[in-house]
Amino acid sequence: MTFAHSHLLGIEPLAPHDIRAVLDLADTYAERGRSGAKHGDALAGLTQINMFFENSTRTQASFELAGKRLGADVMSMAMQASSIKKGETLIDTAMTLNAMHPDLLVVRHPHSGAVDLLAQKVNCAVLNAGDGRHEHPTQALLDALTIRRAKGRLHRLNIAICGDIAHSRVARSNIILLGKMENRIRLIGPPTLMPAGIGEFGVEVYDDMQKGLEGVDVVMMLRLQRERMDGGFIPSEREYYHRYGLDAEKLAHAAPDAIVMHPGPMNRGVEIDGELADDIRRSVIQQQVEMGVAVRMAAMDLLARNLRARRAPQSVMA
Amino acid sequence: MTFAHSHLLGIEPLAPHDIRAVLDLADTYAERGRSGAKHGDALAGLTQINMFFENSTRTQASFELAGKRLGADVMSMAMQASSIKKGETLIDTAMTLNAMHPDLLVVRHPHSGAVDLLAQKVNCAVLNAGDGRHEHPTQALLDALTIRRAKGRLHRLNIAICGDIAHSRVARSNIILLGKMENRIRLIGPPTLMPAGIGEFGVEVYDDMQKGLEGVDVVMMLRLQRERMDGGFIPSEREYYHRYGLDAEKLAHAAPDAIVMHPGPMNRGVEIDGELADDIRRSVIQQQVEMGVAVRMAAMDLLARNLRARRAPQSVMA
Amino acid sequence: MTFAHSHLLGIEPLAPHDIRAVLDLADTYAERGRSGAKHGDALAGLTQINMFFENSTRTQASFELAGKRLGADVMSMAMQASSIKKGETLIDTAMTLNAMHPDLLVVRHPHSGAVDLLAQKVNCAVLNAGDGRHEHPTQALLDALTIRRAKGRLHRLNIAICGDIAHSRVARSNIILLGKMENRIRLIGPPTLMPAGIGEFGVEVYDDMQKGLEGVDVVMMLRLQRERMDGGFIPSEREYYHRYGLDAEKLAHAAPDAIVMHPGPMNRGVEIDGELADDIRRSVIQQQVEMGVAVRMAAMDLLARNLRARRAPQSVMA
Repeated sequence: MTFAHSHLLGIEPLAPHDIRAVLDLADTYAERGRSGAKHGDALAGLTQINMFFENSTRTQASFELAGKRLGADVMSMAMQASSIKKGETLIDTAMTLNAMHPDLLVVRHPHSGAVDLLAQKVNCAVLNAGDGRHEHPTQALLDALTIRRAKGRLHRLNIAICGDIAHSRVARSNIILLGKMENRIRLIGPPTLMPAGIGEFGVEVYDDMQKGLEGVDVVMMLRLQRERMDGGFIPSEREYYHRYGLDAEKLAHAAPDAIVMHPGPMNRGVEIDGELADDIRRSVIQQQVEMGVAVRMAAMDLLARNLRARRAPQSVMA
Repeated sequence: MTFAHSHLLGIEPLAPHDIRAVLDLADTYAERGRSGAKHGDALAGLTQINMFFENSTRTQASFELAGKRLGADVMSMAMQASSIKKGETLIDTAMTLNAMHPDLLVVRHPHSGAVDLLAQKVNCAVLNAGDGRHEHPTQALLDALTIRRAKGRLHRLNIAICGDIAHSRVARSNIILLGKMENRIRLIGPPTLMPAGIGEFGVEVYDDMQKGLEGVDVVMMLRLQRERMDGGFIPSEREYYHRYGLDAEKLAHAAPDAIVMHPGPMNRGVEIDGELADDIRRSVIQQQVEMGVAVRMAAMDLLARNLRARRAPQSVMA
Repeated sequence: MTFAHSHLLGIEPLAPHDIRAVLDLADTYAERGRSGAKHGDALAGLTQINMFFENSTRTQASFELAGKRLGADVMSMAMQASSIKKGETLIDTAMTLNAMHPDLLVVRHPHSGAVDLLAQKVNCAVLNAGDGRHEHPTQALLDALTIRRAKGRLHRLNIAICGDIAHSRVARSNIILLGKMENRIRLIGPPTLMPAGIGEFGVEVYDDMQKGLEGVDVVMMLRLQRERMDGGFIPSEREYYHRYGLDAEKLAHAAPDAIVMHPGPMNRGVEIDGELADDIRRSVIQQQVEMGVAVRMAAMDLLARNLRARRAPQSVMA
């Protein structure tokens, strides 16, 4: 199991064997979680600080639980309320926390690239918990683990990513990861919610759900990110659901055993039919959340191993 | 010590022996707390999540301390700020947290019945930390423990509950608990703050403090819940204090050794005279807070035992 | 190592040997932190509650980390959002928390003297994390430790404190501490930001940076506390920087090996030139943050020892 990185900033820098290393270890943690076995104390004595410059109940909770279950001292900071008001820069805030010797820094930030910038300034392991429209690597990893467990493999699958692609870091990280693992990706959504230059990623683009879903193994729905649409086209929810919302009828075009995914939080009746979302024969939405904790445990565990190796007196700096 | 429940949703479903089981164990924890002895690690390896959809410094702090002292991994979430804004439903939020495998879920919610609904959807132990005007079981249990310790028994006492009964889940849970334990209950307050159909509970109703307090052993004051009074009669604070606020003069009508209680936070000079509240010969208000931590430790300990028994491979599902 | 106090409310009540006791122990913790050694569990089994009635990311994080690293159960409460809204008094809030048997109470409050008042009401150790314009003792102690480590001593130094003295509890605590340790203190700033009666502290006062900085060993910049300036003179940032902001040119008047300090958060380009702040040959700003955690660990450790001694059965109450 090799994972030769100091940070987890995105899927972009990861090789397929890195991705497999995270997923394999996460699988172990997921099984321990289900059986009620002890999780060990891989992070005992380490300090994990969560800096969320955007609210996110589920992602922050997932990272917090992952750290606590592995024995870390976890501190979660609501960044909006505090230092930003006092006019401190992101880098000053990061340098300040860095001087307190954290080991793991989990950061969510509204600006693309902010987490990369920050990682250059600190000497601990940084995990990107979502930055602007750029990357959300642990989401892509938990999606990958969910798919691998449901389908038995993570390659040569036909995967449709549907909806508001343009505003979605989830879509971006997933496209990169699933592409690296040699799957065929289709993007389905209104042209106005499709990013410019998407052709370069080697994906197929559809604006019709029925055609796009034809025979796919995985249907990945996205959240309509109204809060990120500044100006431009904002579809009515009713119109959007009619054309792009996933329901049983549209899903009938996919493979008979296709699974349905959504990163949450869901807008029921906008992106997805509520009943379908709850149908455990098709929907793996709850497993995604469950795998989220496992993937974050694995990622922090692997980064902590590298951190300890780098810090050990006999080691050579990478 | 038997407590055959999966959740603590209210006092309503509890039998007298359940109530005694919680109080007896809580008594042990209270004594350990006073002597500075270790509390043990009854919740070690378990995850407790506090979901407060309404702010409450004291109740949340009490549950958080109770869990941490017994070794749980505790995560407290300010629910208002986060997922609610994104339009997620209560059930989706609960299902998401459920997928993270918590063991104990402590929930406060502004709507009556919301916590019961949620308990049907998750597979962990749920504790109701107050739902609308419905129930607040740990408050009633801590009040009961405080009374039992001060009076030496919890039956055949004359107990007056005074003030804003209509808006109070504290009153409701207390009426049920004290009734089950065979005490005589008097409700005192303005008719406009008395709920409809209160006669069915087998209580006596007064709108005069002097008459209502005559000879009682326990005087339980309630907080004036202005924030829950939408429209309808809102008394002036001065008028209210004059007629229904507890002071030494009104208390003189009670038994000479009557104790004074208040669930907090107090409006001094509205519901109760400030000096009387601080008079440790009569007021047990601080003991109520102290017993709050002990009762929550006991309730979580008992629920965790049942949880472990249910999950053990050889066990039969209840 | 003797530290015969029940609380840490300010620098005022401390004797030089008390100050040395904190700094010596903090030095040990700082070295352990740098080497990655275990911090021990001096606070295991104890409950630390942080009550911040004013926001402060860095101070609260520092106390929280300090407690967690020593094994305390730490609970941080955002006090603005909760009980204050419900109209509860500071003392009632404190009494409530006190009834939950905390061991260490860390309090920040906007009113001078609030923390002293609170300490009289509770039976645990209280640490002042900043009260109004009064004191901020752990800040002065961390500044002292940073100076002692950089300069090799903490006496007979020439130290300039520059900027908004009038609104600064940091300045006040530092003036008292550095005076007790027999250093020569100069205050530099516009007369409008100089407190009345400052002459009594045995300090020299300047309103010209060049003259004031002449030959000093330590330059301590302060944050411009606009949020505390109600009415009165508010300088423009540009004008302020021109006259009182620290840059290389002004610093050239100090001793060649003078160090530069700032308590943070910094207003770059207002109180201090950004490049100078980052110049690790002169600036010890990051060390201040690092020493902050160490000093808070030491202070809580010493107070906990006294607490345990007071509570032990054979001891005589102080």
